[in-house]
Amino acid sequence: MIGPDDRGFTLGDGLFETVLAEAGALRWLDAHLERMTAGCAVLGLPAPGRGAAERLMTAALAEAGVTKVRAAVRLTLSAGPGGRGLERPAVLSPTLVATAAAAPLSAGPARLITATVRRNDRSPASRLKTLSYLDNILARAEAVAAGGDEALMLNTRGQVACAAAANVFWVTEAQLFTPALDCGVLAGTARARLLEAAATMGRPVQEVRVGPEALAGAEGIFLTSSLAGARWAETLDGRPVGPGGQAAALVESLS
Amino acid sequence: MIGPDDRGFTLGDGLFETVLAEAGALRWLDAHLERMTAGCAVLGLPAPGRGAAERLMTAALAEAGVTKVRAAVRLTLSAGPGGRGLERPAVLSPTLVATAAAAPLSAGPARLITATVRRNDRSPASRLKTLSYLDNILARAEAVAAGGDEALMLNTRGQVACAAAANVFWVTEAQLFTPALDCGVLAGTARARLLEAAATMGRPVQEVRVGPEALAGAEGIFLTSSLAGARWAETLDGRPVGPGGQAAALVESLS
Repeated sequence: MIGPDDRGFTLGDGLFETVLAEAGALRWLDAHLERMTAGCAVLGLPAPGRGAAERLMTAALAEAGVTKVRAAVRLTLSAGPGGRGLERPAVLSPTLVATAAAAPLSAGPARLITATVRRNDRSPASRLKTLSYLDNILARAEAVAAGGDEALMLNTRGQVACAAAANVFWVTEAQLFTPALDCGVLAGTARARLLEAAATMGRPVQEVRVGPEALAGAEGIFLTSSLAGARWAETLDGRPVGPGGQAAALVESLS
Repeated sequence: MIGPDDRGFTLGDGLFETVLAEAGALRWLDAHLERMTAGCAVLGLPAPGRGAAERLMTAALAEAGVTKVRAAVRLTLSAGPGGRGLERPAVLSPTLVATAAAAPLSAGPARLITATVRRNDRSPASRLKTLSYLDNILARAEAVAAGGDEALMLNTRGQVACAAAANVFWVTEAQLFTPALDCGVLAGTARARLLEAAATMGRPVQEVRVGPEALAGAEGIFLTSSLAGARWAETLDGRPVGPGGQAAALVESLS
């Protein structure tokens, strides 16, 4: 249990990772822990040890009874108990917990709605998976209220950034594009795998800083995340989106 | 205690108020609960009842042994336990807790540092006191690292917004100014009292949308918050700030 003065609860002061577990095996765990460690350096938090993290995650899978199915394990690190105010105590006792739940593959393509809530690319937190996730919650809620199921988020400069809980890619004239990290984008683990695989295949993804007009003529738009892999969009703001053209097979092969 | 799947802890999905208690009396409680209620409407959360909130806060004061001193009581409301993902469960069980601690008047004027982390005025959360507070933590940390003790935050348009944990005002030619709420500013309870009192005295505060150059020639800069009242700044980015000129006495009388 978490204390009511835990800075994760009071101030969103921490980080998390959501890891895909297949029949009890933690997929791409190294990439997730490396990302959390990098985030800890930005936030000034001590990074958790791999052994402790893995033990907690494995125990969470067992406790939730999902060691034999497709599951999601969430590892949450917070700055731990803190007194009043924004500044952390001189000696930190970070909180590290894991929870798990079954995670069947989500059904069907996404219906994207461009949210009015913007991604705050003017904060380093926009490149991290932090506990201060309310802007994304509000963006998702906007999308759902408008009949969609995921938000497309622009950053404060009006550039395409990401979905509420995924990275975004698109295909134009058989070329793959995705927003550059400095657009306020989480360095997604599935995003990184896709970039690497596409480069290896001689079809590198272009990381760009562009407005939403770049998506208007796209042959396909898709989202990537640890849990869903690649997920195509069928609509953007109610307008049909193409099936991806020549890139569709490539994306399927990568995900 | 808070569950590890509480959306306050996992996603910063909630709101808080910090209330000044003087010898056990909760100051301006109505204003705080009205603000939390208004925030709940924006976030789609059920607002707590006044009776429950007051009982929790009074109990927290007693438990902390601070019923006879100047104290801060924090009331935290979260969306409560939630499953995986951004969307809330169909039936919410919000978490409502209170903690208290002694809060002696902070010593001396503020040394402000303009932070590079921006206030995200492109999200409705920027006008609320939410649990997703990491941008403010990062701004404060920047200020402390630069030898200051509080951050001046600009918004994503480059306009003056607020401090990391206070509203900001300034005086130029005996006129009081403060950023308009749509600059991404929390509707501070002390800010509201100051606006009202100044208007009553025939010296209304101008709510403005201006860049940091507006502060360069100010006769004085001060911060307001529930706990500190009005607190003058002595420096901004290392440069001395004036003592407030004719407005100093007015501000003292209001706070």
